[in-house]
Amino acid sequence: MENTVPLKALILVCSLTPSPAKSSSEHMAKQIAAEMDKYGVTSTLIRAVDHDIKPGVETDMGEGDAWPQIRRQMLEADILLIATPIWVGHPASVTQRIIERLDAELSETDDEGRLLTYGKVGAVAVVGNEDGAHHVSAELFQALSDVGFSIPAGGPAYWVGEAMQSTDYIELEETPEMVAKTIKTLAANSVHLARFLKNNNYPAV
Amino acid sequence: MENTVPLKALILVCSLTPSPAKSSSEHMAKQIAAEMDKYGVTSTLIRAVDHDIKPGVETDMGEGDAWPQIRRQMLEADILLIATPIWVGHPASVTQRIIERLDAELSETDDEGRLLTYGKVGAVAVVGNEDGAHHVSAELFQALSDVGFSIPAGGPAYWVGEAMQSTDYIELEETPEMVAKTIKTLAANSVHLARFLKNNNYPAV
Amino acid sequence: MENTVPLKALILVCSLTPSPAKSSSEHMAKQIAAEMDKYGVTSTLIRAVDHDIKPGVETDMGEGDAWPQIRRQMLEADILLIATPIWVGHPASVTQRIIERLDAELSETDDEGRLLTYGKVGAVAVVGNEDGAHHVSAELFQALSDVGFSIPAGGPAYWVGEAMQSTDYIELEETPEMVAKTIKTLAANSVHLARFLKNNNYPAV
Amino acid sequence: MENTVPLKALILVCSLTPSPAKSSSEHMAKQIAAEMDKYGVTSTLIRAVDHDIKPGVETDMGEGDAWPQIRRQMLEADILLIATPIWVGHPASVTQRIIERLDAELSETDDEGRLLTYGKVGAVAVVGNEDGAHHVSAELFQALSDVGFSIPAGGPAYWVGEAMQSTDYIELEETPEMVAKTIKTLAANSVHLARFLKNNNYPAV
Repeated sequence: MENTVPLKALILVCSLTPSPAKSSSEHMAKQIAAEMDKYGVTSTLIRAVDHDIKPGVETDMGEGDAWPQIRRQMLEADILLIATPIWVGHPASVTQRIIERLDAELSETDDEGRLLTYGKVGAVAVVGNEDGAHHVSAELFQALSDVGFSIPAGGPAYWVGEAMQSTDYIELEETPEMVAKTIKTLAANSVHLARFLKNNNYPAV
Repeated sequence: MENTVPLKALILVCSLTPSPAKSSSEHMAKQIAAEMDKYGVTSTLIRAVDHDIKPGVETDMGEGDAWPQIRRQMLEADILLIATPIWVGHPASVTQRIIERLDAELSETDDEGRLLTYGKVGAVAVVGNEDGAHHVSAELFQALSDVGFSIPAGGPAYWVGEAMQSTDYIELEETPEMVAKTIKTLAANSVHLARFLKNNNYPAV
Repeated sequence: MENTVPLKALILVCSLTPSPAKSSSEHMAKQIAAEMDKYGVTSTLIRAVDHDIKPGVETDMGEGDAWPQIRRQMLEADILLIATPIWVGHPASVTQRIIERLDAELSETDDEGRLLTYGKVGAVAVVGNEDGAHHVSAELFQALSDVGFSIPAGGPAYWVGEAMQSTDYIELEETPEMVAKTIKTLAANSVHLARFLKNNNYPAV
Repeated sequence: MENTVPLKALILVCSLTPSPAKSSSEHMAKQIAAEMDKYGVTSTLIRAVDHDIKPGVETDMGEGDAWPQIRRQMLEADILLIATPIWVGHPASVTQRIIERLDAELSETDDEGRLLTYGKVGAVAVVGNEDGAHHVSAELFQALSDVGFSIPAGGPAYWVGEAMQSTDYIELEETPEMVAKTIKTLAANSVHLARFLKNNNYPAV
């Protein structure tokens, strides 16, 4: 396997707050992008809430819908990384909106009847003040697998604080060692899987 | 206990599609409202996506935000019914946005330090083509209990079809008997609990 | 409403480890029992894994099944508190086994067709080294509401540590202030609701 | 890539009912095994409840524990398929017990510090009378990814009936066409990914 094939990643940051406000999700997303860069991955990072992604489950919801352009970048990417905050223990509404738009991919197939998302890796990063990362990643892994992405070993990259506390990830003086290792692993495993799938798509059935 | 105290319900319908398009969530919501009406409950039904509810976790996200007015109706109501579709097995993004806005209630208290939502009942209706009602109600019950609502016995009212099928609830010729019973139970139990809590709020601790 | 009516609580501790080993779930369960005691609640605490609760979804799974006796205590109680650890982000297998056995209650009704669990409060306590309390309480609130319990306002009592750390709740030198307040609230709200429902069961529909 | 390398699959059927009783989970598991057989996969099917898998989170819970022998087969396999029923909307207690035992793998590494599960595919099949397949697969995908398995594109194989109905999957006269296609896809995609990972494990980080 050629380890130097260049790869593209699309990173969707799902903060509820528009740019240029600071975002812990974006902070972790950038850490992952920096790790993936070491493996020859070019990342495009989009803060979803900056764009008018319309509610709905079609690939194009009509006038003013920002999704079709984001979708084009998703289709060109080898890795889709969703970086999401946790709200009330759940994926953010911005995240769920993206999942709804990805649902449309179930109707989009190539000449051999395979989803256009086949051959791409889905990766997940989760941050919150407290509690919820495992569940949020469960929601996202299920959704990403359903709509055609493959999930690498090693789980999501995540950080949450102790129960009922309010520090943000971006405020930490240093990334905890275990979290840093998880970020490295997520990057390495996503790239490993994406490089294979890029040239070895799933068979048509 | 006086069974004739009039009650108010706010029903938030979380369809992804704006009015006047048909909505299965709204259909079930109206069935529940009709049952609650028999017990003297006046319902106000709002299709959330018709209003510009801004992303965020404050009670008021500023200019153009539709939530403060909806919130006022929530605070006046004795019962909050969330009627939601299922998308990719999850609560709709419109639903999660409401949950995020309700998160702000954790900072709003009365003179005795109790949340303003204490004394209100949270009820849930879920519809989908297939699969997901139990999980969606789990997400909502947890969120509603967290932010101060009480959950009556009997679970949500819900309907989903067989795996991987595509009929909508609103297209059914008749409401299945078991679903109709669940709707009646949801209405009766929500009213029973709301009538008590209206005059017997939880103690301050 | 008479505030001195004595109440009974059944507390099911769902640690994976049999007695007499220390258990963080049991520790929090006892803290809640102590708070409920102030309101005149007599608690019986059972560590579920000490008993041979058979797999299945019937009220009695036959020879050697410990559930029928535990079930008898559940039916006599006004409050069922489930205290559970988190494993891999989920309710413990011991907890899910209890939920499966409670599923049988959907077929057990009184003379008016109401579930025997109607009129009882379901309360939840969750502990873990890290992450998962919101989701575990979501699973439990949905299950408890489904099978006939009512859920008080204020969410579960819970504690988890920072992401990827390994301290146990029972090892903390002091219960964090916010957690202690949550425990007090859970006790007060459960008692408030149970005292009402004990003498004012839901109507038959 | 050599498409004829023989592969091994371990299939854990998580029915609550011991053999030889019929099991819908086992029925779907055998359908998947038959499909995988076409690709040269030898499957071993174990009904977990027939064995005394002790509660706990260690690789070996001591005397009488059936897990160490099952674990040995898991370590020899290239694909782990978990076939589970849904109970009260959740993975069965038998399934969660297996997840808890797999949690121990987080402490088991090879010479290069990689989990022993790296290089294996995790696949999921879910059946129930009604509702819950998406959520159950979410719980399992998150758990499997966390403990080192990779998840192929295409989601789980699953079947559930319409809301509140009681037919079992095994009672269907014919497997619905869409379900049959999902089973084929699960088999093909799991094999595709497993064949790659068998000879191209994730890098050490």
